[in-house]
Amino acid sequence: MSAKWLNKVKWDENGLVPVIAQQVGSNDVLMFAWMNREALSKTVELGEAVYWSRSRRKLWHKGEESGHIQKVHEIRLDCDEDVILLKVEQVADVACHTGRHSCFFQQFQGKADDGEWVTVEPVLKDPESIYK
Amino acid sequence: MSAKWLNKVKWDENGLVPVIAQQVGSNDVLMFAWMNREALSKTVELGEAVYWSRSRRKLWHKGEESGHIQKVHEIRLDCDEDVILLKVEQVADVACHTGRHSCFFQQFQGKADDGEWVTVEPVLKDPESIYK
Repeated sequence: MSAKWLNKVKWDENGLVPVIAQQVGSNDVLMFAWMNREALSKTVELGEAVYWSRSRRKLWHKGEESGHIQKVHEIRLDCDEDVILLKVEQVADVACHTGRHSCFFQQFQGKADDGEWVTVEPVLKDPESIYK
Repeated sequence: MSAKWLNKVKWDENGLVPVIAQQVGSNDVLMFAWMNREALSKTVELGEAVYWSRSRRKLWHKGEESGHIQKVHEIRLDCDEDVILLKVEQVADVACHTGRHSCFFQQFQGKADDGEWVTVEPVLKDPESIYK
């Protein structure tokens, strides 16, 4: 993992970068996660998204439990070189652990002084059937 | 800013959340930034994206210098309630300070042990003409 292209990424004080996963074609934003050097290197190697789980403190090959892996079509880096964008093909069309297509299923409705977050996307697959 | 909907957001240890800005229609991911409570509240109030600049440590009404404001059409929250997605109409079609449509203009090419980041998006507007 001493590859030069990995050095171009500006890892934060924890050795991580934010990652946005976007569906190829529709361009829907599916989820947001983090990667360390090893995760990004593995992602390129496998052609499948590998993140760093901050809660479990280990590499997380997306779909390792659910089967809902993400085939990586393209990897982008932003102007400040501290954020990654993955264009992926989401297996089963379900990226979220709630069984929804995207993790961004809560929509703000209302005004600044009186608003609420409303669920506006359907569950495509029962989470209990995903994680046995 | 004591509104209940703001309390639903899980602010990090610095009182911030990551924010993804996405173009309405094309769904292109334009940029990534951060918000604090005040920034999110202002965004709803104005209907224009207001971020928190971590480098300048102040509110940043996107476009305040360049004129390239972002009109907010929709605000989404993710399943963990710690990431925001904005669907915006990007004025002048230029979100990036380099004069490009999107900040994610560098594409990874190659393999894990020998790759590079290649600029694949054109400059639409000379940055010198943006920031006088």
